[in-house]
Amino acid sequence: MTMVNIIDKKRLGNILTKEELEEAFLGYYNGEIPDYQMSSLLMAICLKGMTDEEILNLTDIFIRSGEILDLNGVHGITVDKHSTGGVGDKTTLVVASIVASLGIKVPKMSGRGLGHTGGTIDKLESIPGFRVDLTEEEFIQRLNEVGAAIISQTKNLAPLDKKVYALRDVTGTVESIPLIATSIMSKKIASGADKIVLDVKVGTGALLKTQKEALEISRIMKMIGAHYGKEVETMITYMDIPLGTSIGNALEILEVIKILCNEENNYLVALCKALSSKMVQLALGKNINQANDMVEDSLKNGKAYLKFLEIVKAQGGDLSGLRVSKNTQDIHSTKSGHVIDMDAYRFGKLSLDLGGGRKTKEDKIDPSVGIVLKKKIGDDVKIGDVLCTLYLKEGSAPIQEDLTDYYTFTMTKEEEKRIDVL
Amino acid sequence: MTMVNIIDKKRLGNILTKEELEEAFLGYYNGEIPDYQMSSLLMAICLKGMTDEEILNLTDIFIRSGEILDLNGVHGITVDKHSTGGVGDKTTLVVASIVASLGIKVPKMSGRGLGHTGGTIDKLESIPGFRVDLTEEEFIQRLNEVGAAIISQTKNLAPLDKKVYALRDVTGTVESIPLIATSIMSKKIASGADKIVLDVKVGTGALLKTQKEALEISRIMKMIGAHYGKEVETMITYMDIPLGTSIGNALEILEVIKILCNEENNYLVALCKALSSKMVQLALGKNINQANDMVEDSLKNGKAYLKFLEIVKAQGGDLSGLRVSKNTQDIHSTKSGHVIDMDAYRFGKLSLDLGGGRKTKEDKIDPSVGIVLKKKIGDDVKIGDVLCTLYLKEGSAPIQEDLTDYYTFTMTKEEEKRIDVL
Repeated sequence: MTMVNIIDKKRLGNILTKEELEEAFLGYYNGEIPDYQMSSLLMAICLKGMTDEEILNLTDIFIRSGEILDLNGVHGITVDKHSTGGVGDKTTLVVASIVASLGIKVPKMSGRGLGHTGGTIDKLESIPGFRVDLTEEEFIQRLNEVGAAIISQTKNLAPLDKKVYALRDVTGTVESIPLIATSIMSKKIASGADKIVLDVKVGTGALLKTQKEALEISRIMKMIGAHYGKEVETMITYMDIPLGTSIGNALEILEVIKILCNEENNYLVALCKALSSKMVQLALGKNINQANDMVEDSLKNGKAYLKFLEIVKAQGGDLSGLRVSKNTQDIHSTKSGHVIDMDAYRFGKLSLDLGGGRKTKEDKIDPSVGIVLKKKIGDDVKIGDVLCTLYLKEGSAPIQEDLTDYYTFTMTKEEEKRIDVL
Repeated sequence: MTMVNIIDKKRLGNILTKEELEEAFLGYYNGEIPDYQMSSLLMAICLKGMTDEEILNLTDIFIRSGEILDLNGVHGITVDKHSTGGVGDKTTLVVASIVASLGIKVPKMSGRGLGHTGGTIDKLESIPGFRVDLTEEEFIQRLNEVGAAIISQTKNLAPLDKKVYALRDVTGTVESIPLIATSIMSKKIASGADKIVLDVKVGTGALLKTQKEALEISRIMKMIGAHYGKEVETMITYMDIPLGTSIGNALEILEVIKILCNEENNYLVALCKALSSKMVQLALGKNINQANDMVEDSLKNGKAYLKFLEIVKAQGGDLSGLRVSKNTQDIHSTKSGHVIDMDAYRFGKLSLDLGGGRKTKEDKIDPSVGIVLKKKIGDDVKIGDVLCTLYLKEGSAPIQEDLTDYYTFTMTKEEEKRIDVL
């Protein structure tokens, strides 16, 4: 069957066979099918959907396009987690420490940041000496000795998915539940863990807009997991705001330490606890209350924090060398009100502009720069209050932009009362 | 708005503004938008449709991408016709002769064949001396003097449509009613005639599969015509078989002469009469019965044939030089039965392979080769009967292929009777 016939078949809402999917997607991977035919097929898939069987077949094609990490050398149950990421997302570091402190193996391959969202690997590299490039043998050894290891991708996992994703990104074909599910699951299956917890983000700023879509993708990802003998749990989360109080690499490591030392109590902390509990529940077969208690205990008795220190040490990191910039700038509010929203994208973009991220793959990151948020959703703000503190590159001038409109305000209760009096 | 946002907007079923359509399509024409983004948008349009306003806007963008032929110098009403073409389609030559013989101006720009369907221009070029490259002035002069002129495209008409069509052809995005309508109508409007008759083909082998779709595209094309002050009539036709009895360039000119001399009586003749009547009706404001009578008269009294000779002469053609190959081969049937279908595509492909068409734009055509069909739908065939006669290139060997399976047979009435007896 020619590619045009395959596209036609999907355009008319028919089911593609495994052979047809292979012809299209492997052909694309091998460069025999041009971008313009694949993008047309992807749009037809977006609008006509895929059956469970098509989804399983496509996932399999993605997985087999690359290597599969062999974690058989790891003693005990391995649990992986995935979240779609976001500005200030440092959940991996917190969660891996908590879960590994409870005797569960957490093999984690993470990415670097590109664009306005940061990457776990960049955050870890702000710790002098931290090796993110462990060999496969070293990775498995650390998992057996420490319980968790976090490295940048060693194997060529689902490279076809990578190629397809890059095309989807520029052809308006990202928002497809079957395609999102196959993309996430092919990488997770290839990463080799026994069990997987997936953080599914829903909301106006997320790929998935409704609870119904989130439930559907959860069902599909569990179905794919079951096909490969992997237990999968999903957690549906709703917030699209900067996670926690810090954005920037070294600053986020400091925030991780604060969380593990029980010095923070916010949405990010709650999210980390919930994800950890799901992983514990899945790995140890506990009920969710038992798992919650174990997580809380690990944080309270300091075991999670000690595990974090152990992970860092085992990978060669020296926390005493962590540096944040001394060139700081307080940003004062030019408005007053009650904060009801924050623009995660603009904060992420700002951190990138300060030097904390890379615009192209070749850019070098300054780990010492970033933003610490002083006001968050739910806070009352008066004119002149410090909204956030910027950590600028050493020697660079303060920024001139008024950041007040990164925040959305309503009237505070005090202001409302005054109006009632009038 | 970025192209990805425009694609997203259409994917979600929203209406694109004229500015957005311009950004996408003119951007594509200028090479700023890559093929893979345009094909994704085209697929979204296929599946989500377009409003009448979007269709009018896109048609206008297509038209304005090129030139518009100015027919103001032609005295009297000009009527153009369009049909989607097909194997053995020589309607233009018959219809132009009939209609021009009735005092109506028929300015016709036609194409060359590519692939398995022939082109009117190639057919005319089998007449020695026939000039298909008249200048615009010569074209208008012939129209005023003779009433009809048939040339290959002189102006750069709707070049953006041409670029988009080439992409649709390889991305499974041809079958979209709004896109088919904008493509046809942009070229027809740019061709400058006052009134237009459109032959809309429906059937399993055609782009449009159902009567409902044919009625919808008719409505849209009339709506576009009205927007530009052009009266448009459509004729819905159903057959997907070789038109007439000859395939091949010189052979088809001979068939045109036979039709104009009233020596043929088949579906093609009926189609030519019907199209001519519609054009007469539209141009002269007659009712369809009056128009029919005029067409029949013109054929019977030989005026249509004389007009054809006049057209050929005015464009420098010498019919006495028309040559068909003397190297012929009768193809005998290896089956018996009643013919209920013929594979137009395979017959077209065969004529191409004999040398009557071009596989690439650079190929040279042999006008003397082709096929004359001896058995057509409705005929009874016995084993050994001549199905068709091939006109091979001079000096080339007979073909070995059994062409019997280009035909579909059922039992003949005779055969049925015999079974009834048993």
